[in-house]
Amino acid sequence: MGSMEKQRIEEGNIPARETEAGEMVEGRNAVLEAFRSGRTVSRLYVQEGISDGPVMTILREARKQDTIISRVKKERLNQISVTKNHQGVIAQTAACAYAEVEDILRRAKDRGEDPFLFILDNIEDPHNLGAIIRTANLAGAHGVIIPKRRSAGLTAVVMRASAGALNYTPVARVTNITQTIENLKKQGLWFVCADMDGEIMYKVNLTGPIALVIGNEGEGVSRLVKEACDLTARIPMSGDIDSLNASVAAGVLAFEAVRQRQYPSAGK
Amino acid sequence: MGSMEKQRIEEGNIPARETEAGEMVEGRNAVLEAFRSGRTVSRLYVQEGISDGPVMTILREARKQDTIISRVKKERLNQISVTKNHQGVIAQTAACAYAEVEDILRRAKDRGEDPFLFILDNIEDPHNLGAIIRTANLAGAHGVIIPKRRSAGLTAVVMRASAGALNYTPVARVTNITQTIENLKKQGLWFVCADMDGEIMYKVNLTGPIALVIGNEGEGVSRLVKEACDLTARIPMSGDIDSLNASVAAGVLAFEAVRQRQYPSAGK
Repeated sequence: MGSMEKQRIEEGNIPARETEAGEMVEGRNAVLEAFRSGRTVSRLYVQEGISDGPVMTILREARKQDTIISRVKKERLNQISVTKNHQGVIAQTAACAYAEVEDILRRAKDRGEDPFLFILDNIEDPHNLGAIIRTANLAGAHGVIIPKRRSAGLTAVVMRASAGALNYTPVARVTNITQTIENLKKQGLWFVCADMDGEIMYKVNLTGPIALVIGNEGEGVSRLVKEACDLTARIPMSGDIDSLNASVAAGVLAFEAVRQRQYPSAGK
Repeated sequence: MGSMEKQRIEEGNIPARETEAGEMVEGRNAVLEAFRSGRTVSRLYVQEGISDGPVMTILREARKQDTIISRVKKERLNQISVTKNHQGVIAQTAACAYAEVEDILRRAKDRGEDPFLFILDNIEDPHNLGAIIRTANLAGAHGVIIPKRRSAGLTAVVMRASAGALNYTPVARVTNITQTIENLKKQGLWFVCADMDGEIMYKVNLTGPIALVIGNEGEGVSRLVKEACDLTARIPMSGDIDSLNASVAAGVLAFEAVRQRQYPSAGK
């Protein structure tokens, strides 16, 4: 942020709502994670009169980092809030930068692990996108790839839904998912498409260098992307309706991969 | 709905927004499921000018059931909409009734299956509640139990997030979760609490008559409920943040139960 911009805020103006790049981090978990992960928080807004345990913890972190703290009325916080679910705290952070695909692969290499990626084919709901980034983090994945068009971007809603995972798990944005898959195949990755016409997931090998490809909420994985994948995995379903929520499906498949990768003897 | 109420609507008034009992079913999947599952749809609102495939399918179902169809402008549909994501179709249905715990057990008995239940300890987000009912349906569970207080109820948002699963999977509301657990223990059920201090889920026996107990988004399963449970199961997590989204965690644990119950040889 330029110094003029900062000056303007210090004079008491409310910054424009950020709908790009997650400038505003809202809610207690997300704000605390932003501090703990070492993100640059340029200013912390705290609702007047709130001083419970979680908020005191956030204030301690903010003081450690010499963050400017503004105590504001609830009405003002509501005005700043994008998610309308700030829980009394909003942090204004440096823009959350998109990573490059190479950064994600380097992360796997640095850890000495086989690459484990998520490719999200047009996830439109920011809550789903955030929840999947959260899942990717906890499943030990190295990063998430989303397309530039027809996908939710990294907004404050996504940051909050990710419960801070966006501070740790890199997200790369690419122009053409199919092209990216073809390039990554040359580097040895295998692509597993989540689809109900696939082989049951227990029989699909999810170990080694893989990317799980998760489709759009309504239409699933698009035809061209599906054709570019090496394998298709199905979650076993026995109910009356068609499909799981996209972030739940991603979670179920992700943790089947975790089971195969980290607990190969489970189930014996 | 009384006939006077119906009359009022037919005269062109817009019914009051329903925040209880899921009277308005919104979105294409949810509306289609409402028809196909045999729910009583008293009126179908369709946005003027929309006549693509999915909407034509819904209209066919509506005509089969002699449902009153109202073509309305987008603005009016937006006004009726609770979720603000109606996709051009809203069905006004008979209130979605809560089931009794006994109904859920009878369902298992009728199918000749060991009871498989979900108990949700204060899930507050209607999207999470809907997504978990959706998961329960597809995991082959017989029903879901929620507490009367401090839980999202069965609203239109929940119906939509359940993608129609609420038409099939009974949801019972009880006054005291701990008491319900004690009663069901006498009927042979085992209670498995999802908690990060538990045994890794692969080693917890999730076969036989069980209920999975899922906690609140922020605080997890409450102390008294946790103490009433027989077993505690942990999802393996290797990332930087604390916990999965509640509906993702429920999904991961549910499908570990599916693996153990239906695919005991998977992983060998």
